Amino acid sequence: MTLEGKSLIGQQAVAGNSSAIHAVNPATGEQLDPAYAGGSAAEVDKAAQLAWDAFDAYRETSLEDRAVFLETVASEIEAIGDDLIQRAVAETGLPQARIEGERGRTCGQLRLFAKVVRAGEWLDVRVDPAMPDRQPMPRADLRQRHIALGPVAVFGASNFPLAFSVAGGDTASALAAGCPVIVKAHSAHPGTSELVGRAVQKAVAKCGLPEGVFSVLFGSGREVGAGLVADQRIKAVGFTGSRSGGTALMKIAQQRKEPIPVYAEMSSINPVFPLPAALKARGEAMAEGFVASLNMGAGQFCTNPGLVIAEKGEALDAFVAKAGEVLKGSASQTMLTPGIFDAYQQGVGRLSSHDKVREVARGQVGETPNQCQSGLFVTAAADFLADEALQEEVFGSTSLVIECADAAEVKQVAEHLEGQLTVTLQMDDADLDAARALLPTLERKAGRVLVNGWPTGVEVCHAMVHGGPYPATSDSRTTSVGSAAIFRFLRPVCYQAMPEGLLPEALKESNPLGLKRLDDGQRES
Amino acid sequence: MTLEGKSLIGQQAVAGNSSAIHAVNPATGEQLDPAYAGGSAAEVDKAAQLAWDAFDAYRETSLEDRAVFLETVASEIEAIGDDLIQRAVAETGLPQARIEGERGRTCGQLRLFAKVVRAGEWLDVRVDPAMPDRQPMPRADLRQRHIALGPVAVFGASNFPLAFSVAGGDTASALAAGCPVIVKAHSAHPGTSELVGRAVQKAVAKCGLPEGVFSVLFGSGREVGAGLVADQRIKAVGFTGSRSGGTALMKIAQQRKEPIPVYAEMSSINPVFPLPAALKARGEAMAEGFVASLNMGAGQFCTNPGLVIAEKGEALDAFVAKAGEVLKGSASQTMLTPGIFDAYQQGVGRLSSHDKVREVARGQVGETPNQCQSGLFVTAAADFLADEALQEEVFGSTSLVIECADAAEVKQVAEHLEGQLTVTLQMDDADLDAARALLPTLERKAGRVLVNGWPTGVEVCHAMVHGGPYPATSDSRTTSVGSAAIFRFLRPVCYQAMPEGLLPEALKESNPLGLKRLDDGQRES
Repeated sequence: MTLEGKSLIGQQAVAGNSSAIHAVNPATGEQLDPAYAGGSAAEVDKAAQLAWDAFDAYRETSLEDRAVFLETVASEIEAIGDDLIQRAVAETGLPQARIEGERGRTCGQLRLFAKVVRAGEWLDVRVDPAMPDRQPMPRADLRQRHIALGPVAVFGASNFPLAFSVAGGDTASALAAGCPVIVKAHSAHPGTSELVGRAVQKAVAKCGLPEGVFSVLFGSGREVGAGLVADQRIKAVGFTGSRSGGTALMKIAQQRKEPIPVYAEMSSINPVFPLPAALKARGEAMAEGFVASLNMGAGQFCTNPGLVIAEKGEALDAFVAKAGEVLKGSASQTMLTPGIFDAYQQGVGRLSSHDKVREVARGQVGETPNQCQSGLFVTAAADFLADEALQEEVFGSTSLVIECADAAEVKQVAEHLEGQLTVTLQMDDADLDAARALLPTLERKAGRVLVNGWPTGVEVCHAMVHGGPYPATSDSRTTSVGSAAIFRFLRPVCYQAMPEGLLPEALKESNPLGLKRLDDGQRES
Repeated sequence: MTLEGKSLIGQQAVAGNSSAIHAVNPATGEQLDPAYAGGSAAEVDKAAQLAWDAFDAYRETSLEDRAVFLETVASEIEAIGDDLIQRAVAETGLPQARIEGERGRTCGQLRLFAKVVRAGEWLDVRVDPAMPDRQPMPRADLRQRHIALGPVAVFGASNFPLAFSVAGGDTASALAAGCPVIVKAHSAHPGTSELVGRAVQKAVAKCGLPEGVFSVLFGSGREVGAGLVADQRIKAVGFTGSRSGGTALMKIAQQRKEPIPVYAEMSSINPVFPLPAALKARGEAMAEGFVASLNMGAGQFCTNPGLVIAEKGEALDAFVAKAGEVLKGSASQTMLTPGIFDAYQQGVGRLSSHDKVREVARGQVGETPNQCQSGLFVTAAADFLADEALQEEVFGSTSLVIECADAAEVKQVAEHLEGQLTVTLQMDDADLDAARALLPTLERKAGRVLVNGWPTGVEVCHAMVHGGPYPATSDSRTTSVGSAAIFRFLRPVCYQAMPEGLLPEALKESNPLGLKRLDDGQRES
């Protein structure tokens, strides 16, 4: 498939006039063709107007039509075949098996949302029947459903070129909610973005939907990204990336005439708490699991375990020694972009040169460009507590072990943490009381609490929470992974005394969609 | 019952050191005793620390204990008896019957949330069972529930001294969610606030809850109000009031180290759309209903119908003439505070002196202080579209009729509107197509769409949405009235592979609470 290097606006391919973007193969440093002409205000305006024009019709598509559309997007992505895999590998330096797995996850995610759309629970239909004879005042018939917020701007993430990019989780959940989507493609994988964008474009046409349901724009964050978030026709934003990027978008969104929600997944160091009995009984095995999680994907996951917090002593020493030994032998891995590699080098440098931090081990040095050399460091709880900078995320395969005097200090460090996507307990039965004492703190700090697993690997399912208190995300009330992600793009509307002929399908007294409504406070079964 | 004039912090009564607040009887201008010593940073700190200390225990109270607490608050409010009614009447100028009705609503609201808490649907429990044999990767057991956000700051509203004040809807829903509450009492009704605050204080003690579950502070918005919103221990804010007040709180909340959600219900002019057939068939009866809604409570409702949008012609002229005639005879009513009266006078003055606005009628002039003289005005759609200022809410009994050339201009005016709490259609069967054409716009603009009713009178039930796009509220995804208000104060947490002994009650495999969980995406019945 020939790449054109153009933004996809509705059913058209449009060349922008701003500076061109070139992908770079991070494994070789080689620049990849074609050039992607950057968009500007004109392309933002065109895509936003098309999205706005499509909104009222798209949000009222039937559950079945919308589900089929999501499934068609999945099939069209699969139909690209090997071209997609090869291009994504070249643009990201990620292994082929990983990209293939990620394609499966992306298409599975779209099909999960198709099921969620059909089930219709997201409509949260509530009916409070009229009480014409109530004293002192009658009650009118009141019905509630949820409707889509409006066109959504989605920012592709560098570290998931498929699953959190053009047709990733944010796009799938926004489309499922009934929102048109405009993607600001990540500049690190424009070819992958064009290929997936064309697949979505085809699905829109095949399903006979208004073209403005989907566009993907190439360009700079400042011009295209900020322009989208500031546009009055955009009503919500999905973003996965850095803290500085996320907070910049939050600020733009808040300064609009009509402020809008920004769902930014930004920053997390995912503390692991090995509890005493588990640490003593199986510290070495734990160390192997820990380093495997730390090194996965060169540590370029939002849920990478960047912090280990435990009571000091022989058991922790043995864990650290073993982890250091395993890490020392770990091969270097190509990072996603030269920029990410540079930031990683600087972050590890800050730890290496910190006078309160001890370097335990570094992994193998790379021989090709942009290779991540893993790092393991140790510091004392008091030093960690005294220096906010030690909580800063180093994106990549690096972790810091915090030695605590006792359980009370472990809890103190936990309370001191910023908001996280995940926290992990490593525990045995004998640790149950210690775990119970920590749990209230951990729940307050994170969106997901794991026991005896590792935080990398985020299941796409119904119970998943990939979210958490600020700065892990901008909105702790939500998740960006799993079926509950749809709720981010909905708002409730109440219809009072509306005649059956005017009521939307979901609310008609005849209940043509067969929904289990909340009827006067009782769930229909 | 003797009023002490002190803030209630946990179980104590505390005198502040800032300027004192005196209630004023708006019907007489008379100052009411006692003086309320204003709190400052010290009181904010004390209440916030107590709330923080109470949080972990309170959010894990059993559903039954929490429900009984809410019911006990209701009983304790009723137990104050006539003292509460008399004081509220003196502080607000509202009629006794209205205050009695509002007490009923307030207690009913608390009891509704008790039922909601017991039912447990708000926990939104989701279980995705482990799949140990899944290929290529096993799935861990994943469970989700919702937990409380943290201590909540609630700002009492001037226009609902009971139902949206110390133990009103924001407080009831936050307590139901498991959040301790600190109320910043409205300075217009401190005595009412103290009485209700003591009732809640008693309920906390009777139920054996940690004292920090509830406090009420007196003081200035700048010192106590802003101090609460900026405090790192406060995790959400509930506010009903002016647009300037709400946006000021939003700004403080966004500038915190950890930004927090502000649920501000601020500003709405609640447009009414009389459609042609209905206007022709029953314009005069409609005019009577309209003026009755407009004059209710001196127009001091968030849902007061401040705008009428219709096609010009004989039918609209007859409606306007009749409405003007009824309004001319309407008695003046005492407004809540001298400040609100002054703002009303200025707002009506802006309309009266606007060169594109025609005064149709004014109501009776008052003979006692602070009396609202109703107003009805007319302007042309083109003039309304050309002047943003004509969309500004005038809090009180005043409405502006917009004459449109045709249905297309009606729609154009609707699209031009800012976000609203309500929009109302007055329609007959022959108007169905016209209504259908307008509905997509109306849904986008408001949280509640009414047919053939009037927007005043907000039912406390399950399907109610008292919310809407900015600037009606700060967060269109929520409602501040009705049982769904609880969702504002919750966030999801996922528990991965957690042993049964550590799992919270709601998530145990044995399902001791008997909840209907979402099991692998299927709703249990």
